[in-house]
Amino acid sequence: MTDLDRDREAVLAANAAFYAAFEMLDYDAMKRAWATSPQVTCIHPGATPIAGRDAVLSSWREIFASTTSIHFTLADVRAYVAGDVAWVVLVEQIEARHDEAVVRASTRATNVFVREAGEYRLVHHHAEPASARRMPARATALN
Amino acid sequence: MTDLDRDREAVLAANAAFYAAFEMLDYDAMKRAWATSPQVTCIHPGATPIAGRDAVLSSWREIFASTTSIHFTLADVRAYVAGDVAWVVLVEQIEARHDEAVVRASTRATNVFVREAGEYRLVHHHAEPASARRMPARATALN
Repeated sequence: MTDLDRDREAVLAANAAFYAAFEMLDYDAMKRAWATSPQVTCIHPGATPIAGRDAVLSSWREIFASTTSIHFTLADVRAYVAGDVAWVVLVEQIEARHDEAVVRASTRATNVFVREAGEYRLVHHHAEPASARRMPARATALN
Repeated sequence: MTDLDRDREAVLAANAAFYAAFEMLDYDAMKRAWATSPQVTCIHPGATPIAGRDAVLSSWREIFASTTSIHFTLADVRAYVAGDVAWVVLVEQIEARHDEAVVRASTRATNVFVREAGEYRLVHHHAEPASARRMPARATALN
């Protein structure tokens, strides 16, 4: 296994850790997924870009507070590495539950990572709503 | 001026060159804006991600062929540099003309650059349609 292969695996693991933190709605794990640099940015689906670590972490706190459960299936995952920076381009298939509604969505995402103390951590997340269906929670029992 | 400042300026210049190539509908300039690496990716607004230099460059050729004119105003431009990789997060305000229709759109974009032979070049462009208005070309004379 070359260094590049190892780096790509490390980036894919960091990417998976980000989505695992999101699925667990685990704020501390989400915090660890992000770089400690204040220069982080985030574009949540359909929202204005957010800049700065404090603002980005606050946005996750709010999202977690308003989400009952969320599940991701990742597709077309492509990871690229150039030294201490890496980026992942992928499609997120999402099923989220917010109180009485279930949202099934597909988003296209770009995640940029920087290596800090040997670990790749997010410096930018851009998720674009590709398509979404919203329905009352009960209706999903029929699917 | 520090090296970091110089790098940030170089990235902003590369970002500006990309939008200038787009406005001029200049395929050769667009080709020069992209890294020569085959590992480039592009997500055009509302479209499936494209991977590979040939496929990405073909997509620009098609876009240029179907665009009569396009103008960008860039807003909230944030540039970040980590060695030979840089990324720019911004809002594109677009006015495009396609035959008889004028489209005014605002898109959120992420551009990732890698330094090749001393020059930052695009390896990933992700533009998300934030909002769009489409109208017959004549109607814009009233605005």
